[in-house]
Amino acid sequence: MEKKELIYEGKAKKIFATEKSDLLIAEFKDDLTAFNNIKKGNEVGKGALNNKISTELFKILEKKGVQTHLVETIDETHQLVKKVEIIPLEVIVRNIATGSFVKRFGVEDGKVLPFALVELCLKDDTLGDPPMCADHALALEIATQEELSILKEMALTINSALQPFFAKVGLNLVDFKIEFGRDSHGTILLADEISPDSCRFWDLATNAKMDKDIFRQGLGDVKVAYEEVLNRILGAEK
Amino acid sequence: MEKKELIYEGKAKKIFATEKSDLLIAEFKDDLTAFNNIKKGNEVGKGALNNKISTELFKILEKKGVQTHLVETIDETHQLVKKVEIIPLEVIVRNIATGSFVKRFGVEDGKVLPFALVELCLKDDTLGDPPMCADHALALEIATQEELSILKEMALTINSALQPFFAKVGLNLVDFKIEFGRDSHGTILLADEISPDSCRFWDLATNAKMDKDIFRQGLGDVKVAYEEVLNRILGAEK
Repeated sequence: MEKKELIYEGKAKKIFATEKSDLLIAEFKDDLTAFNNIKKGNEVGKGALNNKISTELFKILEKKGVQTHLVETIDETHQLVKKVEIIPLEVIVRNIATGSFVKRFGVEDGKVLPFALVELCLKDDTLGDPPMCADHALALEIATQEELSILKEMALTINSALQPFFAKVGLNLVDFKIEFGRDSHGTILLADEISPDSCRFWDLATNAKMDKDIFRQGLGDVKVAYEEVLNRILGAEK
Repeated sequence: MEKKELIYEGKAKKIFATEKSDLLIAEFKDDLTAFNNIKKGNEVGKGALNNKISTELFKILEKKGVQTHLVETIDETHQLVKKVEIIPLEVIVRNIATGSFVKRFGVEDGKVLPFALVELCLKDDTLGDPPMCADHALALEIATQEELSILKEMALTINSALQPFFAKVGLNLVDFKIEFGRDSHGTILLADEISPDSCRFWDLATNAKMDKDIFRQGLGDVKVAYEEVLNRILGAEK
């Protein structure tokens, strides 16, 4: 499949058209950004690691009945994906309170939440991705009631699949952000990526952070941690 | 009923104990605050106006089946109210997008929402009253699932009663903030107040603001507008 014109460039990926109208190519970039683009960095090889990690996780989720946009890996940094219209919502699932949640609500960092909390933010960098509720998304005509129910259900299914998977390889899935899109039939597919850029992983033995918080907080070598996450995922599947 | 010790002082009211353990006295202050206490002011007579306005509105709501904490008016600035444990949520109902909502989500000021949108904020000045969803309130054990359903239902009932009432007296009920409490039996009662401090009213003929936005934005004489709101309410009931 040939890479045609660039149709979108985000903070961590470029999206290209292909010769097929319903397929796109996603290129995983080495760029790292945090705090709504205030902190920027670049780590050679990060894109390739996220491509591999996200591919493995999407395959696991497909086996659990979660429909995703992934078609196949093309090379180190490229995936072939189904074309979707991205729903401009960041869907966040939180198992443990940390990060912005702790700052917003003044709760203890590391508090285990009594249930997996699904949050929505409007995907809009200029507005700082403001948090919203399902009724806001409905009132602002971002998604239908049925779609919002599906997003929540899929988010919880993904959490129920990934949390025990990561626990088996010694990682605590603290929280993660996912995005969804509608294909040409209106079916909701998991899109974007699931990687240490979009999840928080804490080592179950040491509580060490093994995700983008290393970059956000300047805690060490991002690539070493991302490689470790990939190796544990690959080890689990053998 | 005698005013005993001060048990709480908020931005617009003082709450006193009485000789009865299940009754309190609320004193309406003349203070005005905005932008989470950054702008402060005082308008002699404002407290008395809000006491009268809130009393009239709570009586109207009682007739519509909404249980409130109001027992009776004591004098110009004092009400006798049932003692409740305030649920630390600001429940906001929006009919028209304006104010912080417009800034947060980048929508057009004055946009009529397709349905009455019920929002929650954590009532916590030090955190800036952060917006939250029902699931957050549940996860942080602020209220039970059943209580959250009751709050939403009561908020919508209040809006359904007040919006047409105000329309008849030429006022557009744009949005309002209410608070609820649990009495000693666990029954949820409407508490706090409903007044031009906690509502936005736009004159239906001229679109003139007739609420605390006059103070927030320095648009004119707060007391004249609040008196006009009171007179229209009293006129409607004749």
